[in-house]
Amino acid sequence: MDTAPPLSPTARSTVRRGAERARTDRTELHAVLDAGLVGHLGVVLDGSPVVLPTGYGRRGDTLYLHGSTGAATLRAAAAGVPVCFTVTHVDGVVYARSAFHHSMNYRCAVVHGVARRVTDPGERLLGLEALTEQLAPGSWAATRQPDRRELAATALLALDLTEASLKVRTGPPGDDERDLAAPVWAGVLPLRTVVGEPEPCPLLPDGAPVPARIRDRGV
Amino acid sequence: MDTAPPLSPTARSTVRRGAERARTDRTELHAVLDAGLVGHLGVVLDGSPVVLPTGYGRRGDTLYLHGSTGAATLRAAAAGVPVCFTVTHVDGVVYARSAFHHSMNYRCAVVHGVARRVTDPGERLLGLEALTEQLAPGSWAATRQPDRRELAATALLALDLTEASLKVRTGPPGDDERDLAAPVWAGVLPLRTVVGEPEPCPLLPDGAPVPARIRDRGV
Repeated sequence: MDTAPPLSPTARSTVRRGAERARTDRTELHAVLDAGLVGHLGVVLDGSPVVLPTGYGRRGDTLYLHGSTGAATLRAAAAGVPVCFTVTHVDGVVYARSAFHHSMNYRCAVVHGVARRVTDPGERLLGLEALTEQLAPGSWAATRQPDRRELAATALLALDLTEASLKVRTGPPGDDERDLAAPVWAGVLPLRTVVGEPEPCPLLPDGAPVPARIRDRGV
Repeated sequence: MDTAPPLSPTARSTVRRGAERARTDRTELHAVLDAGLVGHLGVVLDGSPVVLPTGYGRRGDTLYLHGSTGAATLRAAAAGVPVCFTVTHVDGVVYARSAFHHSMNYRCAVVHGVARRVTDPGERLLGLEALTEQLAPGSWAATRQPDRRELAATALLALDLTEASLKVRTGPPGDDERDLAAPVWAGVLPLRTVVGEPEPCPLLPDGAPVPARIRDRGV
Protein backbone atom coordinates (compact mmCIF):
# COMPACT_ATOMS: atom_id res chain seq x y z
CA MET A 1 0.00 0.00 0.00
CA ASP A 2 1.29 3.39 -0.89
CA THR A 3 1.00 5.83 1.97
CA ALA A 4 2.74 8.74 0.28
CA PRO A 5 1.08 12.03 1.19
CA PRO A 6 -0.71 13.83 -1.62
CA LEU A 7 0.96 16.72 -3.41
CA SER A 8 0.20 19.96 -1.60
CA PRO A 9 0.61 22.69 -4.15
CA THR A 10 1.95 26.07 -3.15
CA ALA A 11 1.05 29.21 -5.08
CA ARG A 12 4.00 28.55 -7.38
CA SER A 13 3.29 24.90 -8.02
CA THR A 14 -0.46 25.21 -8.44
CA VAL A 15 -1.49 24.24 -11.93
CA ARG A 16 -3.42 27.25 -13.24
CA ARG A 17 -3.93 26.56 -16.92
CA GLY A 18 -5.96 23.46 -17.63
CA ALA A 19 -6.51 22.81 -13.94
CA GLU A 20 -8.63 19.76 -14.82
CA ARG A 21 -5.37 18.15 -15.89
CA ALA A 22 -3.68 18.58 -12.52
CA ARG A 23 -3.00 15.47 -10.45
CA THR A 24 -2.31 15.37 -6.77
CA ASP A 25 -1.25 11.77 -6.29
CA ARG A 26 2.35 11.54 -5.12
CA THR A 27 2.62 7.95 -6.36
CA GLU A 28 1.73 9.15 -9.83
CA LEU A 29 4.37 11.90 -9.56
CA HIS A 30 6.96 9.29 -8.67
CA ALA A 31 5.93 7.12 -11.60
CA VAL A 32 6.28 9.98 -14.07
CA LEU A 33 9.72 10.84 -12.71
CA ASP A 34 10.82 7.20 -12.66
CA ALA A 35 9.86 6.78 -16.31
CA GLY A 36 12.19 9.52 -17.53
CA LEU A 37 15.83 9.70 -18.53
CA VAL A 38 16.42 13.45 -18.58
CA GLY A 39 14.74 16.45 -17.09
CA HIS A 40 15.22 20.11 -17.91
CA LEU A 41 16.88 22.11 -15.14
CA GLY A 42 16.22 25.83 -15.07
CA VAL A 43 18.38 28.27 -13.13
CA VAL A 44 18.82 32.03 -13.31
CA LEU A 45 22.29 33.12 -14.43
CA ASP A 46 23.01 36.87 -14.52
CA GLY A 47 19.29 37.56 -14.53
CA SER A 48 18.50 35.27 -17.46
CA PRO A 49 16.99 31.80 -17.37
CA VAL A 50 19.14 28.91 -18.54
CA VAL A 51 17.48 25.56 -19.27
CA LEU A 52 19.64 22.49 -19.81
CA PRO A 53 18.89 18.76 -20.02
CA THR A 54 20.06 16.98 -16.91
CA GLY A 55 20.16 13.37 -15.77
CA TYR A 56 18.59 12.52 -12.45
CA GLY A 57 17.64 9.79 -10.06
CA ARG A 58 15.07 9.51 -7.27
CA ARG A 59 15.23 8.14 -3.74
CA GLY A 60 11.94 8.53 -1.94
CA ASP A 61 11.02 12.19 -2.13
CA THR A 62 14.48 13.39 -3.09
CA LEU A 63 15.71 13.91 -6.63
CA TYR A 64 19.43 13.74 -7.26
CA LEU A 65 20.94 15.71 -10.13
CA HIS A 66 24.56 15.68 -11.13
CA GLY A 67 27.01 17.21 -13.47
CA SER A 68 30.56 18.38 -13.76
CA THR A 69 31.83 20.59 -10.95
CA GLY A 70 32.77 22.99 -13.76
CA ALA A 71 29.26 23.44 -15.16
CA ALA A 72 27.98 26.96 -14.56
CA THR A 73 24.35 25.88 -14.17
CA LEU A 74 25.25 23.24 -11.61
CA ARG A 75 27.42 25.72 -9.71
CA ALA A 76 24.56 28.18 -9.74
CA ALA A 77 22.05 25.56 -8.65
CA ALA A 78 24.35 24.50 -5.81
CA ALA A 79 24.59 28.06 -4.51
CA GLY A 80 21.20 27.95 -2.82
CA VAL A 81 19.15 29.78 -5.43
CA PRO A 82 15.71 28.68 -6.68
CA VAL A 83 15.69 26.07 -9.42
CA CYS A 84 12.99 24.41 -11.47
CA PHE A 85 13.27 20.86 -12.74
CA THR A 86 10.78 19.56 -15.29
CA VAL A 87 10.31 16.06 -16.69
CA THR A 88 7.98 15.68 -19.67
CA HIS A 89 6.76 12.64 -21.56
CA VAL A 90 4.97 13.24 -24.85
CA ASP A 91 2.48 10.38 -25.19
CA GLY A 92 0.63 11.29 -28.33
CA VAL A 93 -0.34 13.87 -30.92
CA VAL A 94 -3.98 14.89 -30.61
CA TYR A 95 -5.48 15.53 -34.04
CA ALA A 96 -8.60 17.69 -33.89
CA ARG A 97 -11.12 18.91 -36.45
CA SER A 98 -9.86 22.46 -35.97
CA ALA A 99 -6.29 23.74 -35.85
CA PHE A 100 -7.06 25.41 -32.51
CA HIS A 101 -7.92 22.17 -30.72
CA HIS A 102 -4.83 20.27 -31.81
CA SER A 103 -2.95 19.22 -28.72
CA MET A 104 -0.64 16.67 -27.19
CA ASN A 105 -1.17 13.93 -24.69
CA TYR A 106 1.57 14.19 -22.11
CA ARG A 107 2.67 13.72 -18.55
CA CYS A 108 4.66 16.55 -17.01
CA ALA A 109 6.19 16.83 -13.54
CA VAL A 110 7.47 20.23 -12.40
CA VAL A 111 9.56 20.57 -9.25
CA HIS A 112 10.39 23.93 -7.68
CA GLY A 113 12.86 24.36 -4.88
CA VAL A 114 16.31 25.21 -3.68
CA ALA A 115 18.79 22.44 -4.36
CA ARG A 116 21.18 21.30 -1.70
CA ARG A 117 24.74 20.31 -2.55
CA VAL A 118 25.34 16.80 -1.26
CA THR A 119 28.61 16.49 0.63
CA ASP A 120 28.10 13.51 2.93
CA PRO A 121 30.11 10.66 1.38
CA GLY A 122 27.45 8.06 2.11
CA GLU A 123 24.63 10.13 0.63
CA ARG A 124 26.82 10.96 -2.36
CA LEU A 125 27.21 7.28 -3.17
CA LEU A 126 23.48 6.63 -2.73
CA GLY A 127 22.66 9.59 -4.96
CA LEU A 128 25.08 8.53 -7.67
CA GLU A 129 23.70 5.01 -7.48
CA ALA A 130 20.17 6.39 -8.00
CA LEU A 131 21.38 8.45 -10.95
CA THR A 132 23.20 5.53 -12.54
CA GLU A 133 20.28 3.16 -12.04
CA GLN A 134 17.80 5.63 -13.54
CA LEU A 135 19.92 5.83 -16.68
CA ALA A 136 21.09 2.24 -16.82
CA PRO A 137 19.36 -0.22 -14.48
CA GLY A 138 21.82 -2.75 -13.11
CA SER A 139 24.90 -0.78 -14.08
CA TRP A 140 25.83 0.39 -10.58
CA ALA A 141 26.52 -3.16 -9.40
CA ALA A 142 27.93 -4.36 -12.72
CA THR A 143 30.52 -1.67 -13.41
CA ARG A 144 33.41 -0.02 -11.63
CA GLN A 145 32.17 2.45 -9.05
CA PRO A 146 33.55 5.99 -8.86
CA ASP A 147 37.00 6.48 -7.36
CA ARG A 148 38.10 9.47 -5.32
CA ARG A 149 39.13 11.55 -8.33
CA GLU A 150 35.87 10.88 -10.16
CA LEU A 151 33.85 11.72 -7.05
CA ALA A 152 35.75 15.00 -6.70
CA ALA A 153 34.89 15.92 -10.29
CA THR A 154 31.17 15.30 -9.80
CA ALA A 155 28.78 17.85 -8.33
CA LEU A 156 25.77 16.15 -6.78
CA LEU A 157 22.64 18.09 -5.91
CA ALA A 158 19.55 17.03 -3.99
CA LEU A 159 16.16 18.58 -4.71
CA ASP A 160 13.26 17.66 -2.46
CA LEU A 161 9.89 16.88 -4.01
CA THR A 162 8.14 19.19 -1.56
CA GLU A 163 6.93 21.71 -4.08
CA ALA A 164 5.97 19.66 -7.09
CA SER A 165 3.08 19.53 -9.51
CA LEU A 166 1.93 17.01 -12.05
CA LYS A 167 -0.11 17.65 -15.15
CA VAL A 168 -1.44 14.92 -17.41
CA ARG A 169 -3.46 15.03 -20.60
CA THR A 170 -5.00 11.88 -22.01
CA GLY A 171 -7.80 11.05 -24.38
CA PRO A 172 -9.34 12.33 -27.60
CA PRO A 173 -9.50 15.91 -28.88
CA GLY A 174 -11.86 18.40 -27.30
CA ASP A 175 -13.43 19.67 -30.49
CA ASP A 176 -16.21 22.25 -30.61
CA GLU A 177 -19.72 20.95 -31.19
CA ARG A 178 -19.90 22.93 -34.43
CA ASP A 179 -16.94 21.01 -35.90
CA LEU A 180 -18.04 17.48 -35.09
CA ALA A 181 -19.68 16.86 -38.44
CA ALA A 182 -16.63 18.01 -40.43
CA PRO A 183 -15.23 15.28 -42.68
CA VAL A 184 -11.88 15.35 -40.91
CA TRP A 185 -10.21 12.48 -39.08
CA ALA A 186 -9.73 13.20 -35.42
CA GLY A 187 -8.09 11.18 -32.70
CA VAL A 188 -4.77 10.41 -31.13
CA LEU A 189 -1.55 9.20 -32.71
CA PRO A 190 0.23 7.53 -29.78
CA LEU A 191 3.97 7.99 -29.40
CA ARG A 192 6.36 5.88 -27.43
CA THR A 193 10.08 5.41 -27.00
CA VAL A 194 11.58 2.09 -28.01
CA VAL A 195 15.06 0.65 -27.79
CA GLY A 196 16.98 -0.55 -30.83
CA GLU A 197 19.66 -3.19 -31.24
CA PRO A 198 22.52 -2.70 -28.76
CA GLU A 199 25.63 -1.30 -30.50
CA PRO A 200 28.75 -2.82 -28.92
CA CYS A 201 31.75 -0.60 -28.15
CA PRO A 202 34.35 -1.26 -30.89
CA LEU A 203 36.89 -2.06 -28.17
CA LEU A 204 34.87 -5.01 -26.83
CA PRO A 205 36.08 -8.53 -27.64
CA ASP A 206 34.16 -10.01 -30.60
CA GLY A 207 30.98 -11.75 -29.57
CA ALA A 208 30.85 -10.32 -26.05
CA PRO A 209 27.32 -11.20 -24.93
CA VAL A 210 24.84 -8.40 -24.22
CA PRO A 211 23.61 -8.79 -20.63
CA ALA A 212 19.88 -9.31 -20.10
CA ARG A 213 19.64 -6.02 -18.15
CA ILE A 214 20.50 -4.22 -21.39
CA ARG A 215 19.13 -6.60 -24.04
CA ASP A 216 15.68 -6.87 -22.46
CA ARG A 217 15.43 -3.32 -21.28
CA GLY A 218 12.30 -1.34 -21.94
CA VAL A 219 12.14 2.39 -21.50
CA MET B 1 22.67 24.59 -51.32
CA ASP B 2 22.29 25.79 -47.80
CA THR B 3 23.69 29.25 -47.34
CA ALA B 4 22.65 29.68 -43.73
CA PRO B 5 25.31 31.51 -41.76
CA PRO B 6 27.07 29.50 -39.05
CA LEU B 7 26.03 29.87 -35.45
CA SER B 8 27.96 32.70 -33.84
CA PRO B 9 27.95 31.99 -30.14
CA THR B 10 27.82 34.82 -27.65
CA ALA B 11 29.27 34.44 -24.17
CA ARG B 12 25.94 33.05 -22.99
CA SER B 13 25.45 30.58 -25.80
CA THR B 14 29.02 29.30 -25.95
CA VAL B 15 29.13 25.63 -25.06
CA ARG B 16 31.61 25.41 -22.19
CA ARG B 17 31.30 21.89 -20.86
CA GLY B 18 32.22 19.23 -23.38
CA ALA B 19 33.14 21.85 -25.99
CA GLU B 20 34.09 19.06 -28.40
CA ARG B 21 30.38 18.33 -28.64
CA ALA B 22 29.47 21.83 -29.79
CA ARG B 23 28.26 22.27 -33.35
CA THR B 24 28.19 25.49 -35.29
CA ASP B 25 26.21 24.47 -38.35
CA ARG B 26 22.95 26.37 -38.59
CA THR B 27 21.45 23.71 -40.88
CA GLU B 28 22.08 21.14 -38.17
CA LEU B 29 20.43 23.44 -35.60
CA HIS B 30 17.37 23.69 -37.84
CA ALA B 31 17.25 19.92 -38.25
CA VAL B 32 17.33 19.33 -34.48
CA LEU B 33 14.55 21.86 -33.94
CA ASP B 34 12.47 20.48 -36.81
CA ALA B 35 12.68 16.96 -35.38
CA GLY B 36 11.08 17.94 -32.06
CA LEU B 37 7.52 18.24 -30.80
CA VAL B 38 8.05 20.15 -27.57
CA GLY B 39 10.74 22.34 -26.14
CA HIS B 40 11.20 23.53 -22.58
CA LEU B 41 10.66 27.25 -22.12
CA GLY B 42 12.38 28.91 -19.17
CA VAL B 43 11.36 32.29 -17.83
CA VAL B 44 11.99 34.05 -14.54
CA LEU B 45 8.85 34.65 -12.47
CA ASP B 46 9.24 36.54 -9.17
CA GLY B 47 12.95 35.81 -9.22
CA SER B 48 12.55 32.05 -9.68
CA PRO B 49 13.00 30.04 -12.86
CA VAL B 50 9.94 28.32 -14.29
CA VAL B 51 10.43 25.64 -16.95
CA LEU B 52 7.41 24.35 -18.88
CA PRO B 53 7.00 22.20 -21.98
CA THR B 54 5.90 24.27 -24.93
CA GLY B 55 4.96 23.52 -28.52
CA TYR B 56 6.73 25.44 -31.23
CA GLY B 57 7.23 25.86 -34.94
CA ARG B 58 10.03 27.29 -37.05
CA ARG B 59 10.04 29.60 -40.05
CA GLY B 60 13.56 30.36 -41.23
CA ASP B 61 15.45 31.67 -38.23
CA THR B 62 12.38 32.43 -36.16
CA LEU B 63 10.79 30.11 -33.64
CA TYR B 64 7.13 30.57 -32.84
CA LEU B 65 5.81 29.57 -29.43
CA HIS B 66 2.23 29.77 -28.32
CA GLY B 67 -0.03 29.26 -25.42
CA SER B 68 -3.08 30.58 -23.73
CA THR B 69 -3.19 34.33 -23.17
CA GLY B 70 -3.84 33.40 -19.54
CA ALA B 71 -0.63 31.43 -18.99
CA ALA B 72 1.70 33.24 -16.58
CA THR B 73 4.87 32.01 -18.29
CA LEU B 74 3.66 33.14 -21.70
CA ARG B 75 2.63 36.51 -20.30
CA ALA B 76 6.06 36.86 -18.69
CA ALA B 77 7.86 35.79 -21.86
CA ALA B 78 5.82 38.30 -23.87
CA ALA B 79 6.83 41.14 -21.56
CA GLY B 80 10.27 41.53 -23.12
CA VAL B 81 12.30 39.63 -20.55
CA PRO B 82 15.05 37.09 -21.34
CA VAL B 83 13.87 33.55 -22.06
CA CYS B 84 15.60 30.27 -22.78
CA PHE B 85 14.10 27.62 -25.02
CA THR B 86 15.65 24.16 -25.14
CA VAL B 87 14.87 21.20 -27.39
CA THR B 88 16.48 17.86 -26.50
CA HIS B 89 16.44 14.49 -28.23
CA VAL B 90 17.78 11.52 -26.28
CA ASP B 91 19.25 9.16 -28.88
CA GLY B 92 20.75 6.45 -26.74
CA VAL B 93 21.97 5.24 -23.38
CA VAL B 94 25.75 4.93 -23.29
CA TYR B 95 26.80 1.95 -21.18
CA ALA B 96 30.38 2.19 -19.97
CA ARG B 97 32.70 -0.08 -18.00
CA SER B 98 32.62 2.38 -15.11
CA ALA B 99 29.63 4.12 -13.53
CA PHE B 100 31.38 7.46 -14.05
CA HIS B 101 31.56 7.17 -17.84
CA HIS B 102 27.91 6.25 -18.33
CA SER B 103 26.34 8.87 -20.52
CA MET B 104 23.67 9.61 -23.10
CA ASN B 105 23.80 10.22 -26.79
CA TYR B 106 21.69 13.27 -27.49
CA ARG B 107 21.10 16.36 -29.59
CA CYS B 108 20.28 19.54 -27.72
CA ALA B 109 19.50 22.99 -29.09
CA VAL B 110 19.43 25.93 -26.66
CA VAL B 111 18.09 29.31 -27.72
CA HIS B 112 18.52 32.46 -25.63
CA GLY B 113 16.78 35.71 -26.36
CA VAL B 114 13.96 38.10 -25.74
CA ALA B 115 10.72 36.92 -27.27
CA ARG B 116 8.57 39.28 -29.24
CA ARG B 117 4.79 39.15 -29.04
CA VAL B 118 3.43 38.72 -32.54
CA THR B 119 0.56 41.10 -33.27
CA ASP B 120 0.55 41.44 -37.06
CA PRO B 121 -2.43 39.37 -38.27
CA GLY B 122 -0.54 37.97 -41.26
CA GLU B 123 2.47 36.90 -39.20
CA ARG B 124 0.17 35.45 -36.57
CA LEU B 125 -1.41 33.14 -39.12
CA LEU B 126 2.00 32.12 -40.50
CA GLY B 127 3.27 31.45 -37.00
CA LEU B 128 0.22 29.38 -36.04
CA GLU B 129 0.55 27.46 -39.28
CA ALA B 130 4.20 26.68 -38.45
CA LEU B 131 3.17 25.54 -34.96
CA THR B 132 0.34 23.35 -36.24
CA GLU B 133 2.51 21.81 -38.95
CA GLN B 134 5.31 21.03 -36.50
CA LEU B 135 2.85 19.13 -34.32
CA ALA B 136 0.69 17.64 -37.04
CA PRO B 137 2.01 17.92 -40.61
CA GLY B 138 -0.82 18.55 -43.04
CA SER B 139 -3.32 19.58 -40.38
CA TRP B 140 -3.29 23.31 -41.14
CA ALA B 141 -4.78 22.79 -44.59
CA ALA B 142 -6.99 19.87 -43.60
CA THR B 143 -8.77 21.33 -40.59
CA ARG B 144 -10.74 24.43 -39.69
CA GLN B 145 -8.44 27.38 -39.21
CA PRO B 146 -8.69 29.64 -36.15
CA ASP B 147 -11.55 32.09 -35.99
CA ARG B 148 -11.41 35.53 -34.42
CA ARG B 149 -12.26 34.33 -30.92
CA GLU B 150 -9.68 31.55 -31.01
CA LEU B 151 -7.03 33.95 -32.30
CA ALA B 152 -7.81 36.36 -29.46
CA ALA B 153 -7.31 33.57 -26.92
CA THR B 154 -3.90 32.60 -28.30
CA ALA B 155 -0.68 34.36 -27.35
CA LEU B 156 1.93 33.95 -30.08
CA LEU B 157 5.57 34.70 -29.42
CA ALA B 158 8.50 34.89 -31.81
CA LEU B 159 12.03 34.04 -30.72
CA ASP B 160 14.87 34.64 -33.15
CA LEU B 161 17.56 32.00 -33.51
CA THR B 162 20.27 34.61 -33.20
CA GLU B 163 21.73 33.38 -29.95
CA ALA B 164 21.57 29.63 -30.20
CA SER B 165 23.85 26.71 -29.50
CA LEU B 166 23.80 23.09 -30.44
CA LYS B 167 25.40 20.21 -28.58
CA VAL B 168 25.50 16.66 -29.87
CA ARG B 169 26.93 13.47 -28.41
CA THR B 170 27.25 10.38 -30.55
CA GLY B 171 29.28 7.19 -30.42
CA PRO B 172 30.56 4.66 -27.90
CA PRO B 173 31.54 5.27 -24.26
CA GLY B 174 34.77 7.09 -23.42
CA ASP B 175 36.07 4.59 -20.93
CA ASP B 176 39.41 4.89 -19.16
CA GLU B 177 42.26 2.79 -20.52
CA ARG B 178 42.47 0.99 -17.16
CA ASP B 179 38.89 -0.30 -17.50
CA LEU B 180 39.04 -1.62 -21.06
CA ALA B 181 39.87 -5.18 -20.06
CA ALA B 182 37.00 -5.39 -17.54
CA PRO B 183 34.53 -8.18 -18.37
CA VAL B 184 31.66 -5.69 -18.72
CA TRP B 185 29.55 -5.06 -21.80
CA ALA B 186 29.91 -1.52 -23.08
CA GLY B 187 28.23 0.23 -25.94
CA VAL B 188 25.12 2.13 -26.86
CA LEU B 189 21.47 1.18 -26.51
CA PRO B 190 19.78 3.34 -29.16
CA LEU B 191 16.45 4.95 -28.37
CA ARG B 192 13.91 6.28 -30.77
CA THR B 193 10.34 7.50 -30.77
CA VAL B 194 7.81 5.51 -32.76
CA VAL B 195 4.15 6.02 -33.51
CA GLY B 196 1.51 3.47 -32.59
CA GLU B 197 -1.87 2.68 -34.10
CA PRO B 198 -4.03 5.79 -34.56
CA GLU B 199 -6.83 5.90 -31.97
CA PRO B 200 -9.96 7.39 -33.56
CA CYS B 201 -12.04 9.93 -31.66
CA PRO B 202 -15.12 8.12 -30.32
CA LEU B 203 -17.29 10.74 -32.02
CA LEU B 204 -16.02 9.85 -35.52
CA PRO B 205 -18.31 7.84 -37.82
CA ASP B 206 -17.42 4.14 -37.77
CA GLY B 207 -14.73 3.23 -40.26
CA ALA B 208 -13.64 6.80 -40.99
CA PRO B 209 -10.38 6.30 -42.88
CA VAL B 210 -7.13 7.50 -41.34
CA PRO B 211 -5.49 9.94 -43.77
CA ALA B 212 -2.01 9.06 -45.08
CA ARG B 213 -0.54 12.17 -43.44
CA ILE B 214 -1.36 10.59 -40.07
CA ARG B 215 -1.18 6.86 -40.85
CA ASP B 216 2.24 7.06 -42.49
CA ARG B 217 3.72 9.64 -40.22
CA GLY B 218 7.13 9.12 -38.72
CA VAL B 219 8.45 11.24 -35.90
